[in-house]
Amino acid sequence: MEISIEQDIFKNEAKLAEENRQLFSQKGLMVVNLLAAPGAGKTSLIKKTAHLLKVPTAVIEGDPASSIDTDTLNALGIPAYQINTEGGCHLEAAMISKALTEFQVEPNTLLFVENVGNLICTAFFPLGEELRVVMLSIAEGDDKPYKYPDIFREADAVVINKLDLKPHVDFRSDNFYKGLKAVNPKAHIFEVSCKNGAGIENWVNWLAVKAATFWAHQ
Amino acid sequence: MEISIEQDIFKNEAKLAEENRQLFSQKGLMVVNLLAAPGAGKTSLIKKTAHLLKVPTAVIEGDPASSIDTDTLNALGIPAYQINTEGGCHLEAAMISKALTEFQVEPNTLLFVENVGNLICTAFFPLGEELRVVMLSIAEGDDKPYKYPDIFREADAVVINKLDLKPHVDFRSDNFYKGLKAVNPKAHIFEVSCKNGAGIENWVNWLAVKAATFWAHQ
Repeated sequence: MEISIEQDIFKNEAKLAEENRQLFSQKGLMVVNLLAAPGAGKTSLIKKTAHLLKVPTAVIEGDPASSIDTDTLNALGIPAYQINTEGGCHLEAAMISKALTEFQVEPNTLLFVENVGNLICTAFFPLGEELRVVMLSIAEGDDKPYKYPDIFREADAVVINKLDLKPHVDFRSDNFYKGLKAVNPKAHIFEVSCKNGAGIENWVNWLAVKAATFWAHQ
Repeated sequence: MEISIEQDIFKNEAKLAEENRQLFSQKGLMVVNLLAAPGAGKTSLIKKTAHLLKVPTAVIEGDPASSIDTDTLNALGIPAYQINTEGGCHLEAAMISKALTEFQVEPNTLLFVENVGNLICTAFFPLGEELRVVMLSIAEGDDKPYKYPDIFREADAVVINKLDLKPHVDFRSDNFYKGLKAVNPKAHIFEVSCKNGAGIENWVNWLAVKAATFWAHQ
């Protein structure tokens, strides 16, 4: 019975995600669902990306509480809208469509959804995104694909952040890559430092191509 | 209806946690529920603590997948038992009581429960623990008590790890302390580096006193 309720929930979420996908298409929004554990640097990556990307960028922020990141982004001129989940552990498709009734986003905008900091629950709730990007900080260690395989499985890209800390932490890239390949051999991998800018250009170029392709097919 | 189901679940969990508390008392186990985001250094703290603490230590490990930490601990002679949640985002009281039917732990042992790496869901499921300890790495940033207040609210202690990275990351201790005090003015705070051992002695001494007090009241 518990399993059948779960299946019903996931079936309904898939349906709502598909409706979102059509909504995003109508609005000309290319949506990136950005997933990570707390403190991996999601907002920093968005800031860097918005600065370099030559297309309008907007952000929907998901947090259990506070509007810290939304305030930071808005102050920088990056339009951002806050969803507080009141302790909830992930964003859901319906929260995004509801947000877009209030949050006015120009057509042909790249919309980042910065999901709640959580390497588990967020994996199971599709939002209708065009791209799913999982991010982690090298300070979190290289064992994450082994311990949290679900979130890596469907990722279009994996962004490994805080490369600047490499001399100071024990992060064995080969072990991380091996674990990731085992669950998702197709994910594009970017090693970056949002602090010193290393690797950001590769990521932004990849994203720009994805966005151009998306809009070409609208 | 959703709220009443949720209330029923939490009521039941509180009851099971209370049963665990009695079970732990019968077995003479002082249980520490260790909560953190992925990669904060929970296993490293347990290793350091077990090495210095002059009482028997055992560990129940919770992970969505893998037995990496359990294998590491057992190899070091620290008895450890793995719970795989198969993608589940937190441990529950019933998982611990079930584990203890298989995992043989000596009386008067300090039992760490290393919960699933998750700064949200784990907060809502009491396990019957004597102490709830929340851990974070300074690489995660100083805004965590503002964004994830629930997990800090009931903590007996907060362990701030990876102090060795202080020169390399932007962690404003005063902002963290301010946020923490606002949700939980009573939590003991320890700043440590599991890598170079800084601050570990203070934490271990505090824990030793707590354990001695616990066993004195058995």
